[in-house]
Amino acid sequence: MARARRLRLHTHDELVAVMRTDSPVCHAEGLAPHTQIFVRNGGRPIVATLFQVDDAFLAEDEIGLSEAAWEALGVDEGTTVDVGHAPPLESIACVRQRIYGHRLNAAALSSIVEDVVAGRYADVHLAAFLTATAALPFDEDETYHLTKAMVDAGDRLSWPGGIIVDKHCVGGLPGNRTTPIIVAIATACGLTMPKTSSRAITSPAGTADTMATLTSIDLDLDAMQRVVTAEGGCLAWGGAVCLSPADDIFIGVERALDIDTEGQLIASVLSKKIAAGATHVVLDIPVGPTAKVRSAEAADRLAATRTSVAGRFGLVTRCIQTDGAQPVGRAIGPALEARDVIAVLKGDPDAPPDLRDRACVLAGVILEIGEAAAAGAGRALAERTLTDGYAWKKFQRICDAQGGMRTPPTARLTHPIVATHSGRVTHIDNRRIARLAKLAGAPDTPAAGMRLHVRLGDDIIAGQPLLTLHAESQGEMAYGLAYAASNPDMLMIAP
Amino acid sequence: MARARRLRLHTHDELVAVMRTDSPVCHAEGLAPHTQIFVRNGGRPIVATLFQVDDAFLAEDEIGLSEAAWEALGVDEGTTVDVGHAPPLESIACVRQRIYGHRLNAAALSSIVEDVVAGRYADVHLAAFLTATAALPFDEDETYHLTKAMVDAGDRLSWPGGIIVDKHCVGGLPGNRTTPIIVAIATACGLTMPKTSSRAITSPAGTADTMATLTSIDLDLDAMQRVVTAEGGCLAWGGAVCLSPADDIFIGVERALDIDTEGQLIASVLSKKIAAGATHVVLDIPVGPTAKVRSAEAADRLAATRTSVAGRFGLVTRCIQTDGAQPVGRAIGPALEARDVIAVLKGDPDAPPDLRDRACVLAGVILEIGEAAAAGAGRALAERTLTDGYAWKKFQRICDAQGGMRTPPTARLTHPIVATHSGRVTHIDNRRIARLAKLAGAPDTPAAGMRLHVRLGDDIIAGQPLLTLHAESQGEMAYGLAYAASNPDMLMIAP
Repeated sequence: MARARRLRLHTHDELVAVMRTDSPVCHAEGLAPHTQIFVRNGGRPIVATLFQVDDAFLAEDEIGLSEAAWEALGVDEGTTVDVGHAPPLESIACVRQRIYGHRLNAAALSSIVEDVVAGRYADVHLAAFLTATAALPFDEDETYHLTKAMVDAGDRLSWPGGIIVDKHCVGGLPGNRTTPIIVAIATACGLTMPKTSSRAITSPAGTADTMATLTSIDLDLDAMQRVVTAEGGCLAWGGAVCLSPADDIFIGVERALDIDTEGQLIASVLSKKIAAGATHVVLDIPVGPTAKVRSAEAADRLAATRTSVAGRFGLVTRCIQTDGAQPVGRAIGPALEARDVIAVLKGDPDAPPDLRDRACVLAGVILEIGEAAAAGAGRALAERTLTDGYAWKKFQRICDAQGGMRTPPTARLTHPIVATHSGRVTHIDNRRIARLAKLAGAPDTPAAGMRLHVRLGDDIIAGQPLLTLHAESQGEMAYGLAYAASNPDMLMIAP
Repeated sequence: MARARRLRLHTHDELVAVMRTDSPVCHAEGLAPHTQIFVRNGGRPIVATLFQVDDAFLAEDEIGLSEAAWEALGVDEGTTVDVGHAPPLESIACVRQRIYGHRLNAAALSSIVEDVVAGRYADVHLAAFLTATAALPFDEDETYHLTKAMVDAGDRLSWPGGIIVDKHCVGGLPGNRTTPIIVAIATACGLTMPKTSSRAITSPAGTADTMATLTSIDLDLDAMQRVVTAEGGCLAWGGAVCLSPADDIFIGVERALDIDTEGQLIASVLSKKIAAGATHVVLDIPVGPTAKVRSAEAADRLAATRTSVAGRFGLVTRCIQTDGAQPVGRAIGPALEARDVIAVLKGDPDAPPDLRDRACVLAGVILEIGEAAAAGAGRALAERTLTDGYAWKKFQRICDAQGGMRTPPTARLTHPIVATHSGRVTHIDNRRIARLAKLAGAPDTPAAGMRLHVRLGDDIIAGQPLLTLHAESQGEMAYGLAYAASNPDMLMIAP
């Protein structure tokens, strides 16, 4: 037993508890630093990493909690809580088996996901599970069972009416921010599209990161229901509604390791879509030499597995291969991409045409599978909806319903990177461009990233700016510039 | 820039730094919670996990450091230090390649080990590396290059004279505490055996854990040189002398994940032996259905790889397969095993004969390869050295030289587990016996573990105590008893 004390200690998502080295409970229970302990206030216990202090800033009978632990436990200052050794984690044995190449069944995957969602996995356990499933990719059965376990571990939305549309992009293409535009078009045409998005995993911006610079995206279940009932759609962050909460935990570690794997990717996306109540989904698969998917064959394979697993849940899927040879639009980074999105929606004459075209192609397919347009007529309807201003009006109404529209922030520091010689742009490395934007601070710093001034095939003269780096701190700008200097062929210019 | 403050925060080996959320340096550098930062005091920077506080217990210009970070940085209270984003870790790209099945070369393994030793790897990165190398085991070249990188990353001892003997056990057999006895015999016979041992990885006790209950094992290089010069040998903890420091970091994570892999095992052992200056090594490979090595063929394979990699470093290796069907001696856990060791050395009439026999067999081989006994005469010399009391005298002298001999602690709580029916003991599960001892608190609680009262083939009557569990806390005793109750066949008694 110990009295809970809020430390106002920010640890991102790690649950941390601090107790005195000489506290009676540490002594009685044999608790050592850096072990996992449970902390319980009547109901479900949380599992936290224990640190210990010799110092008197905590009383002997107090347990200090990080913000993440404080929220997870949900207590008031001074509440008496139970403390003890975290029980041994039986599901870790399944992770170990998986490391050594044994496939996991439904029960094993359920027990892992349950423990992950309950916060019982330390970083090392999460990393081991994700690494094992990257080294030996999930087969289709495992992917199905993981998806199901992830859906079952969270909330599940249901909507009146038959067809609920959704879309997803497998990613790997910087600046490919079509989702806000597609939601605006689809809902303006009367479809129901309750969109939840993730934050970036390994990229410099996810749709949730971009939308967070334009409006409030932390909608709870009630708020989401209200917005969708009023407007037919929303652009919310998936993590706030507890749809597939395991996914958000996995994503945090995948991001730290900079890995994402096909089975995990499918489970991640499908579990979110199923939990969100979708019935018809369009999947954007950019294909290019430095995109996530590098060949038409790989895209076909992904589409086949994805469609097949989705089918086992009764979900209709349409996969569209798109050009993944270079970044989309002119901006990379949450706030910068938000400006591109607004330009397309408003019909600004200088809006990036490639972003507009991609959004219309994908929205067209959604309008067709959602039965708002006849086969073959979807794209034209999507373009008309943009041109006539209906999509922009709808987007503003959705943002208003979510709590009001905001102006995206602007970075304090900008720095151009210029061409060292003249010639034609023959290759743009998506991965290194993304890496550069991340070094500049994206997505954690929303205003950070870059404006890209050139596209494949452009003729360039020496000294012309190729891109402008945006950063909020000198340190991040310095990392970005150093990386750009040592990777001049990230934008290849053939003389 | 920030002023260093010692928080007296115990985090085991994690380097943690705490700063105010509103500190100027966090703002200027764009530092977010749970990111990796560097902290530098002139020389080599440390990399620490940053947490942030809103609270005023730190000043705006202070950086609070955990004990591990404080020691690694080596500063005084109030010293001004540089703080910034940890530089991007290029060697993580090698870990990612390894996850996806690419073999690593010498340069890649060097860069990984270098970053690990510098503290630049977070738990997730360490877990990913170790998991990847468990999923796809190291080949012989990788094992060699990893071993070399691990040797190069630490100190290296050298000793006068030609032959330096050493021994190692691959483990998996609870209670197999022959090392202290062997060192006493070998040095009593005039050989040089500067023994460094690890703490337990996945077992309830390592030799270092057991020796720590008998004497001081934290010898630095000078102390070790002094003890070995005086007595011909020592029984020190490897971690204190910075021999293969990467190994100690890997072992911490392997322990949390409860995995150890063959290549990592070989690199771990060899790097320690080579760095300790050994020239001739005996390897004990217990073989049994629930030991780490389960068949004579697997033992042969391990012996072949191990001997071959060792040969590339000029190290002579002799591998001995021993019986791994059941625990050795009568005790499991650091302090309890120490009492068994003392009983054998003293020649107590009730000393466990199997522990004595195994120690004499292995010591005999060491005496032979160390040229202190003719071929075939080693075992007899080892037994005579024990019987005549020379080994016990030598052991006491070594402990005295290391700082004096101590009496191992006794657990506060003991609880017998009795046979539910009569019959003969037909199977003892080493793994579950080890697990039980660990749940009771071993090795972190030195007095915890068990006394085993029966051996294979013993006839038992219902109600007879099979083992006695030792624990320091009620919580740990309760976990142990619950596990024993739900695993009655851990000791199988056939009616």
